[in-house]
Amino acid sequence: MADCMGEFDLIARYFKRPSLRAALGVGDDCALLQPAPGTQMAISSDMLVQGRHFFPDVDPQTLGHKALAVNLSDLAACGAKPLAFTLALALPQVDEAWLAAFSKGLFALADVHGCELIGGDTTQGPLNICITVFGEVPVVNGRTQALLRSGAKESDDIYVSGTLGDARLALEVLYGRLSVPPEVFNPARARLETPSPRVALGMALRGVASAAIDVSDGLLGDLGHILTASQAGAVIDTSIATKLIASHAYWMGAEGLFDIKNNQKTGPQTCLAYVLAGGDDYELLFTAPVAQRDAVQAAARASALPVTRIGQVQSTPGLRLVDENGAEVANTFRSFDHFA
Amino acid sequence: MADCMGEFDLIARYFKRPSLRAALGVGDDCALLQPAPGTQMAISSDMLVQGRHFFPDVDPQTLGHKALAVNLSDLAACGAKPLAFTLALALPQVDEAWLAAFSKGLFALADVHGCELIGGDTTQGPLNICITVFGEVPVVNGRTQALLRSGAKESDDIYVSGTLGDARLALEVLYGRLSVPPEVFNPARARLETPSPRVALGMALRGVASAAIDVSDGLLGDLGHILTASQAGAVIDTSIATKLIASHAYWMGAEGLFDIKNNQKTGPQTCLAYVLAGGDDYELLFTAPVAQRDAVQAAARASALPVTRIGQVQSTPGLRLVDENGAEVANTFRSFDHFA
Repeated sequence: MADCMGEFDLIARYFKRPSLRAALGVGDDCALLQPAPGTQMAISSDMLVQGRHFFPDVDPQTLGHKALAVNLSDLAACGAKPLAFTLALALPQVDEAWLAAFSKGLFALADVHGCELIGGDTTQGPLNICITVFGEVPVVNGRTQALLRSGAKESDDIYVSGTLGDARLALEVLYGRLSVPPEVFNPARARLETPSPRVALGMALRGVASAAIDVSDGLLGDLGHILTASQAGAVIDTSIATKLIASHAYWMGAEGLFDIKNNQKTGPQTCLAYVLAGGDDYELLFTAPVAQRDAVQAAARASALPVTRIGQVQSTPGLRLVDENGAEVANTFRSFDHFA
Repeated sequence: MADCMGEFDLIARYFKRPSLRAALGVGDDCALLQPAPGTQMAISSDMLVQGRHFFPDVDPQTLGHKALAVNLSDLAACGAKPLAFTLALALPQVDEAWLAAFSKGLFALADVHGCELIGGDTTQGPLNICITVFGEVPVVNGRTQALLRSGAKESDDIYVSGTLGDARLALEVLYGRLSVPPEVFNPARARLETPSPRVALGMALRGVASAAIDVSDGLLGDLGHILTASQAGAVIDTSIATKLIASHAYWMGAEGLFDIKNNQKTGPQTCLAYVLAGGDDYELLFTAPVAQRDAVQAAARASALPVTRIGQVQSTPGLRLVDENGAEVANTFRSFDHFA
């Protein structure tokens, strides 16, 4: 019976697997990891809370995927190779069907990236998933090969991978604020619920990109973090950005997006907002010197993921948006803040 | 105003400090840690949930201490030297007084152990604190020096550090089930709310102890983990164990412990239960060969913490309790299980 299963049975049944890379895995007070000689350990933690990061009725298999994906995305943004992760889980009750589906989604993604569960904690409490992920980054001649936020330089190109805004579009539909046909909604929902961390691109951009971050809070907000860390400004071409949403062809058509709340067709401005400040995209936003344009495209091809040049780093502080004619566009886009 | 402070301000104000040991600390997608040559990284995660691990009205400064202490205790149980930790925090709202006190307690203990905050996450949600801690363990001739649960051998002595049962005594008083005078309650409450992780003892026991664990779920339950991992049994002398509670002198006196629920003086059996299955002790329970008795006491002196020999590892599976005459004592003590 589900509620007779205790903490240790739960770990053994759903989360204990043979240790591969770790010197010691699940089941002792600590796990032991031995990084390869000449490498550093890249470490990141993300916590997912019900009602904040996912709906209470979300499919647990997609939740298992997403909980690890958002952490792997941080490794990708550093150019790190995933090694291992810990999982701390607060559960309202022991629900075996939920646990089986959650661990299935979690391990399916872990296996894609060769990332091993090495330890963690389970406790009773409001549903909360906290994953800490470990990756490896080479150190060459005493210098880390990690992609940092702080390396953007004046005149560097600004790129983003894949498409943006799709997750936000799905979220608006799920909130009942937007109506789109299934062929637009379904792929957008997959982007929201089972994002693909851009690990291969991040690793391919080592030595090519000057700075990188993953887009979790929205393009402009996350670009702001690079600019702050790099003490630089930037200009972004919004005419390119509007084309970055996967459903671009649809919403430029006669149907367009339908704003349920205001009972009207919603304009390109809404889609631009999804692209620039939608959040939950888990694409890589990065800068690279102009001399690296070929190398950037080679990295994109090698990781089978298109990248789009959307702007330029400038020495003048601040973030400027321009249209296709270079005319300034007012920046009314607000990034996601967990306490706003 | 408190509720105008966003996630990034919150991190910057309360949790960002200059990076010392880490190659890269708080503020990028990942932190970077470079373990010293010839070492392994020991890693452990613990999640603390309001109502489960602490009372809603707990002093946030002691909570900051305890959240890190329970994690450092896992490093101690491995004999690892603390290096760094990540903090993921779900908060119902931004309460600056709470955050100031919490971070004060957290960093005070971190500084005692030279353990650096290198990253984490903050989000809105029911109060939940998830810390992942990193320590260093030497590898000598290809063998880890970490203390594992699996190394106990037949005829090894069984030891526990410090005192046991005090935290549980305080918890029973706080639940209103027990009444004791302030001079008994206050030190017990300190043990419950601000436990001292036995880091120095753990490091001193490298190469001396054959197996180790920290006592978090209760002595017998945690000993069970060592015995399972080591495929061994044990005998425990309960006449020694009853003396392990700090308030031993008090409850053997005329006053004794008072059981409010049943309106009667409670007997030594209750105290024995606190010692054997109280939980939240954060002492080290370890085994060592008989030949290491002097070395064990030297490690205890070096770390200024008494250790008591309470039993012996046996080849026969199972855990037997005996009294001072060697007669068997029924084991009716149940360990704490987060889902029981």
